[in-house]
Amino acid sequence: MTESGNIFGHIPLCLPTELFETLAHKRAVRIERILSHGQATPEGTWYDQDQDEWVLLLAGSAGLFFEGEPEPHSLMAGDYIMIPARRRHRVAWTSTNETTIWLAVHIDG
Amino acid sequence: MTESGNIFGHIPLCLPTELFETLAHKRAVRIERILSHGQATPEGTWYDQDQDEWVLLLAGSAGLFFEGEPEPHSLMAGDYIMIPARRRHRVAWTSTNETTIWLAVHIDG
Repeated sequence: MTESGNIFGHIPLCLPTELFETLAHKRAVRIERILSHGQATPEGTWYDQDQDEWVLLLAGSAGLFFEGEPEPHSLMAGDYIMIPARRRHRVAWTSTNETTIWLAVHIDG
Repeated sequence: MTESGNIFGHIPLCLPTELFETLAHKRAVRIERILSHGQATPEGTWYDQDQDEWVLLLAGSAGLFFEGEPEPHSLMAGDYIMIPARRRHRVAWTSTNETTIWLAVHIDG
C-alpha cells in the first residue's frame, strides 16, 4: 500500500485470478483496486458483506447482479453504484477481451 | 445525489466556477465529483480540513501543492493521493484546455 500512485499502472499481462490491492486504508474506510479478466463469482455464490461498498468501474465492463433482480446491471467505464451492507450480490461476468479495473470503497459500519 | 450513475456524464460545456457534486454519502464517508476547468485555489489560501481526503484524478490534469514542499505534485489521469487531515494544501493549477474530473473520498475522523 502506498499513499500515492496511478490506478491504471502495473496491470499484469496475464490475470489467471482476480487481483485485489489496497490503495489506502484510513479509519473506517479501505480503498481497493480490483482487476478482473473474464472472472465471475462462482454460480450460486453471493457476496454478503458487513460493509457498505461503493464501486466505480474505470475500464472494461462487467455485470453486477443483485439477488432478487431479474438481470445484472451492465457496468461500463465510469459507471458507479452503491452496494449497501447485507445486499447480496455477485459479479455475473467481466469482459474477456480487456482487463476490467474496479475502484471499491469499503465503508465499515 | 443518486445511488448510481456515470462519473463521466453530465459535464457542462462551460464551467465558470468549479462544480462539486456529492455522489454518495454513507456513515463517515462522502464521495464527491469535482469538475475544474482552469480554476486554482486563490493565492495565499489553503485547504485545512478536519477530514482525510483521498483524491483520484480521472481526466485532465492538475497541480496539487502541499505547504512546505518545493513544488506542486503534477497529477495526470489515474493518479491518486491521500491528503491527511490538517495537511495544508492548495490546487496550484488545473488544465485550461480540458475539464479536469476529480473523485474525492472525504473520511470523517
